[in-house]
Amino acid sequence: MNTPLGYRYASTYAGIRKVTRDDLALIVSDVLAVTAAVFTQNRVVAAPVLLSKDHLRKARNRVRAVVVNAGNANCATKTGKQVALDCARAVAAKLGVKPEEVLPASTGVIGVELDSRLIVNAIPKLVAELNESRFEDVARAMMTTDTRVKIAFSQAKGAKFAGMTKGSGMIHPRMATTLGFVMTDAFVLPGVLRGVLKRVIGRTYNRISVDGDTSTNDMVAVLANGASGVSPSVKALEDALGEVLESLAKQIVADGEGARKLVTIEVEGAASDRAAERIARAIANSPLVKTAIAGSDPNWGRILSAAGYSGVVFDPARTNIDLQGVPVCRAGLAADFSEEELKKKLDEHECLIRFVIVGRGRGRATFWTCDLTEEYIRINASYRT
Amino acid sequence: MNTPLGYRYASTYAGIRKVTRDDLALIVSDVLAVTAAVFTQNRVVAAPVLLSKDHLRKARNRVRAVVVNAGNANCATKTGKQVALDCARAVAAKLGVKPEEVLPASTGVIGVELDSRLIVNAIPKLVAELNESRFEDVARAMMTTDTRVKIAFSQAKGAKFAGMTKGSGMIHPRMATTLGFVMTDAFVLPGVLRGVLKRVIGRTYNRISVDGDTSTNDMVAVLANGASGVSPSVKALEDALGEVLESLAKQIVADGEGARKLVTIEVEGAASDRAAERIARAIANSPLVKTAIAGSDPNWGRILSAAGYSGVVFDPARTNIDLQGVPVCRAGLAADFSEEELKKKLDEHECLIRFVIVGRGRGRATFWTCDLTEEYIRINASYRT
Repeated sequence: MNTPLGYRYASTYAGIRKVTRDDLALIVSDVLAVTAAVFTQNRVVAAPVLLSKDHLRKARNRVRAVVVNAGNANCATKTGKQVALDCARAVAAKLGVKPEEVLPASTGVIGVELDSRLIVNAIPKLVAELNESRFEDVARAMMTTDTRVKIAFSQAKGAKFAGMTKGSGMIHPRMATTLGFVMTDAFVLPGVLRGVLKRVIGRTYNRISVDGDTSTNDMVAVLANGASGVSPSVKALEDALGEVLESLAKQIVADGEGARKLVTIEVEGAASDRAAERIARAIANSPLVKTAIAGSDPNWGRILSAAGYSGVVFDPARTNIDLQGVPVCRAGLAADFSEEELKKKLDEHECLIRFVIVGRGRGRATFWTCDLTEEYIRINASYRT
Repeated sequence: MNTPLGYRYASTYAGIRKVTRDDLALIVSDVLAVTAAVFTQNRVVAAPVLLSKDHLRKARNRVRAVVVNAGNANCATKTGKQVALDCARAVAAKLGVKPEEVLPASTGVIGVELDSRLIVNAIPKLVAELNESRFEDVARAMMTTDTRVKIAFSQAKGAKFAGMTKGSGMIHPRMATTLGFVMTDAFVLPGVLRGVLKRVIGRTYNRISVDGDTSTNDMVAVLANGASGVSPSVKALEDALGEVLESLAKQIVADGEGARKLVTIEVEGAASDRAAERIARAIANSPLVKTAIAGSDPNWGRILSAAGYSGVVFDPARTNIDLQGVPVCRAGLAADFSEEELKKKLDEHECLIRFVIVGRGRGRATFWTCDLTEEYIRINASYRT
């Protein structure tokens, strides 16, 4: 068993989705778990995000449960606040804990009223079915346009970490993107957990992009209940959490709506890490780069051009670009490469773009995205219908 | 005849494109024309853009000709500078004018060497065929993925204005986007023309977006040769130039790669015009909004969410959204509308999104974009093949 000690899980179909597929799930820690979370930076914020922030503050970062629904974002609705509160209260009452020890999370369509009775009525069954082996069921219940369950595991000095995430479209990393929950049985202090999560998010969830759209409901939370009795060092904690969140983040882009390829962008030689990230982000968000990769077209001019409008000052004449390890641009000019052979290499499921500015700059960044295919359009032209 | 006095035009097939379609064109003014131009702000700048800037300075904003090729951007190539210079010199020699009185412009693929002999050899034929009636042939010769010729006309107190443009993908307005040329026989001073062009570009070409990609070759130039003897007021000049450039800008997005719909975004009630523009731009660049419109899906939640991550501070609870004149969101919540009827209205070729923040803000902006369809992907996944 890979999952950490002291957690139980359940999922059910509450009638929120149009299709009969589990749409409500619960994660419960047997004892209060030290919790850190990051939330969307969108100005339009869903009710469950606001309430979860409020609950974390009130409960001094110690929670017992996360309740999550798919099929409705509970955002931009008249009754949003009340619905989120009703759900948290129903879970708290059934578990015998305080309402502020329950964090609600939602994902799905925006602007459609969510009937809280659907959720409240399903809570007793959900609580009755809680089981330590149903970790993956929760990951599956919160999927929307995801085609794959996204989970990851790691450990630190014997403490276990198990993470799950959902997300496929509306993915852009100003901060936490999509929903993500990591449970660990490590013993960690709240301040330490918060600091580590912030750093790790900066180089994982904040470095992915499917379509440049930041959702109103994004939230990543880490629960540490100490059940293992192990208290890893900050370094060990950061490594273990980093391993889980990097894996989850990459799973999100690999399962980006319509995506067939995971694209890794490495930038080196910029004046700062921040400058490197801006270049990487511009390349990752360029529809022209993403469609070229979908077509296995080694069109490096589009990569150079995207970097050129990133806002970062650099000398194109000192720029080298490699695709799949093959030099395609040297000193800003076409390198001598076999287009046919490279096309074949670009047909693989993973694509690596290396963008190097030759000189004294030490700034570097890694960013992940996916190719842009016709399927993305098909999925999104009729998401609600 | 709608075209201004004192200009002649020609186009030919020089062998730059793979397909036999005119790819080289020439615009000549009979006398030196006062000229103003705006150029790409990409850090990666094509050789013809650099040379045109240089020529304008050397010629003190008075030019005789523009030579433009399609099929190759002459960007990120070893010989780029020499090729651009060779073209300008060949035209100048044949016309008997100074090389700096000729502006070169290129559009097409980046990073492929352009053989200047193809162009130099075609110049004599081009010059021999110059004719005042071949205005539209030039507009057609510079098309790449464009499906339609884009031209527009206006006048001011008897002075005539005729504009042409090309552009369909890699369209994003940090400044001049794509190639655009406007000829007028008005008499205008260089400083006045420069000021008017800058203002007009700010509310036309800088307010359109197809895919958020800024090209390396963008350039819009206005030539005023004074042949009509008419000297319009600054206001009349600005109106006439505005009419032409707004029409051309809208033609570009209406012909955006794969686009079936022209989308106009009106934002009102922001704290400033700049804030309004940022909101409008975020909505215009959201792939989720653009795919929803492609699918005639009145998914206003995506519009609200895009505004939410624009970086502009506003209160969602004071936000109204109308689609095709139908209220879909009032005070941040779903309005009562017939989804079926609205879907039908969204099937039209033009789509209007109105985003209004209720309150004391006076900031407003209009922005144009297009829907995002599967065809965009098809075009761009194999542009070079």
